[in-house]
Amino acid sequence: MNKKEAIDYCINLAKKADENRIRPNPFVGAVILDEADQVIGEGYHQKLGGPHAEVYAIEQALQKTADLSKCSLYLSLEPCSHFGKTPPCADLIIQHKIKKVVIASLDPNPKVASIEKLLAAGIEVEVMNEPSAITLNRRFFTNQLKNRPHYILKLASTIDGKIADYAKNSHWISNAASRQYVHDHLRANVDAILTSYKTVIQDQASLTIRNTTGGIQEANVVIIDKNLELLQTQYEGLPIFYPRTASKIILITAQAPSIQLPENMECITGTFNEQGLVFSSIAAKLLELGYYKILTEAGSQLNSSMIQQNIADELYWFIAPSILNDLNALPMLGLDEFRGLDKKVQLSLIETKLIDQDVLLHYRFN
Amino acid sequence: MNKKEAIDYCINLAKKADENRIRPNPFVGAVILDEADQVIGEGYHQKLGGPHAEVYAIEQALQKTADLSKCSLYLSLEPCSHFGKTPPCADLIIQHKIKKVVIASLDPNPKVASIEKLLAAGIEVEVMNEPSAITLNRRFFTNQLKNRPHYILKLASTIDGKIADYAKNSHWISNAASRQYVHDHLRANVDAILTSYKTVIQDQASLTIRNTTGGIQEANVVIIDKNLELLQTQYEGLPIFYPRTASKIILITAQAPSIQLPENMECITGTFNEQGLVFSSIAAKLLELGYYKILTEAGSQLNSSMIQQNIADELYWFIAPSILNDLNALPMLGLDEFRGLDKKVQLSLIETKLIDQDVLLHYRFN
Repeated sequence: MNKKEAIDYCINLAKKADENRIRPNPFVGAVILDEADQVIGEGYHQKLGGPHAEVYAIEQALQKTADLSKCSLYLSLEPCSHFGKTPPCADLIIQHKIKKVVIASLDPNPKVASIEKLLAAGIEVEVMNEPSAITLNRRFFTNQLKNRPHYILKLASTIDGKIADYAKNSHWISNAASRQYVHDHLRANVDAILTSYKTVIQDQASLTIRNTTGGIQEANVVIIDKNLELLQTQYEGLPIFYPRTASKIILITAQAPSIQLPENMECITGTFNEQGLVFSSIAAKLLELGYYKILTEAGSQLNSSMIQQNIADELYWFIAPSILNDLNALPMLGLDEFRGLDKKVQLSLIETKLIDQDVLLHYRFN
Repeated sequence: MNKKEAIDYCINLAKKADENRIRPNPFVGAVILDEADQVIGEGYHQKLGGPHAEVYAIEQALQKTADLSKCSLYLSLEPCSHFGKTPPCADLIIQHKIKKVVIASLDPNPKVASIEKLLAAGIEVEVMNEPSAITLNRRFFTNQLKNRPHYILKLASTIDGKIADYAKNSHWISNAASRQYVHDHLRANVDAILTSYKTVIQDQASLTIRNTTGGIQEANVVIIDKNLELLQTQYEGLPIFYPRTASKIILITAQAPSIQLPENMECITGTFNEQGLVFSSIAAKLLELGYYKILTEAGSQLNSSMIQQNIADELYWFIAPSILNDLNALPMLGLDEFRGLDKKVQLSLIETKLIDQDVLLHYRFN
């Protein structure tokens, strides 16, 4: 296979991983081609703490030939050069005297600096800037480059962009299959669901993951609750406070609580201004707690604020085939900020999907 | 071919017509199968005043055999039974003693009553209610059943449903290819473009049809202008008043003008209430003037009013990959009417299309 084919092959291998098993690590695929450009080894990173893609590929190749000095290694991401949970792959590549390494995308982690190491060992190195390799690790790149969780917004609206009617009734805008999609593909693939205390109360939300047969799986929730309203006795019975054995509620507040929090509940103090939470104030703490990929399911205010703060990374928008035609209905997005057309926020369309009569548009923010 | 195949064949034949050449007539396709269910004649209605589909199909079949008494005729629409611009097709069918007629959809025109006529002549008749045959003649069915023009709404918005920023700047929300699509596929296929005098002034709109090479074709426009504001001297130079040789401006007003209107300009008086024009008051007059299919390109108020009056038939919605995130920006739709979720207007998705990064969603109103 040629270079393009080998890189595509790596990327497809990388995608075989379940991100929930590798996070915070990136997706990585590796292929070794022999002198005749035939695949003699391949692998992908399968599990956090488990072997890297390169290890699988090299081990497999060694079963075919002891001498890799005429072979090329293709990688979807720059190999590691430091001792993390496993020894550095760059060393392994050097040890086996692989002739050439082709890298589809660089690792933005400053601790990773394999290129010089490989070059110094006399290995030919080619670095590409392959868009599909970067797209694949969108979440990882956000974590590394922006030192914050990767935020995914989920919106479900009518054609005229309403998420509820004037009386805040939103049951239901999108169809049952769209709502199931949210459970199966969005909630099930993030570290936590982010919302506001208002939404938790208004929607009587439990924010669990419900599978198609009705089975329920717990999910971590991060709730913005500046004044710890949810700790008031009247809210004790809210669905969000179901008994948790495998998940947590993280409350984002202005001040640490004076009382002892129940088990499975934790508090992060953040900075608030007139517009609400300043997300940069909680970014490091969220990463530290293991929340690398977060799904926002909230009202207009929180979604709009995240867009304004330039921290929204992706948008999944479900459009129902209906129109409310009422200016008093709740809009999907919008702040009171007189933003001119020249200052509009640009997105890129990633994917469109029909879910019965609903349309799902998946965008990334530019 | 079997019945389903013959009906599909008819519908595909019917679609070969250019609707601009047949309006107000419907699309019709006809196929004649011999005893062995082989096609021996086919045709479609090509031109207003020209032969109907049945005539072409029968003429072609007669070239193969003089005896059609063992043949079946498949039709996408009920044959005509009255003298219109051509003699009744039902008579032609009877004259040639065709054995069986299969009709995919009935003609809602009360003057058309072929079924009994054919049955009385001893012809076997099967009537289907084929959705694709009805969809094909959506515009024709609106005209016949509702005695009004078929109205198509065109909207172009950001993801958050804005058609312009707070300062009414809308140049441009959608991309150049989407805008060209409007010229090629929407403006070019209707009898007139409907708008309000406000839009004509605000957008300095000419509402012509611009082809891809920059060539300009005139288009009829229907402008709602209750008090004939556009006749004021200050508006004489508006782009809409380009010299017209093949098109008209129809002004919809509350009262007939006291002055002589320029050539190529005509006035229809309609009823206005607090919400604006009552569309039912001008329906018959528009049909009489030959406006069977009308594209609305206007602001939120007119579009919303048409939806409220339940006369919007189709929606073409272009979604640009951008977000204004500003509550002060101009919304795509909405009246001040406190409409609950249970009263939302339902649509059906007909088609989705990617136009570069814009998404086009085409709906019909249920």
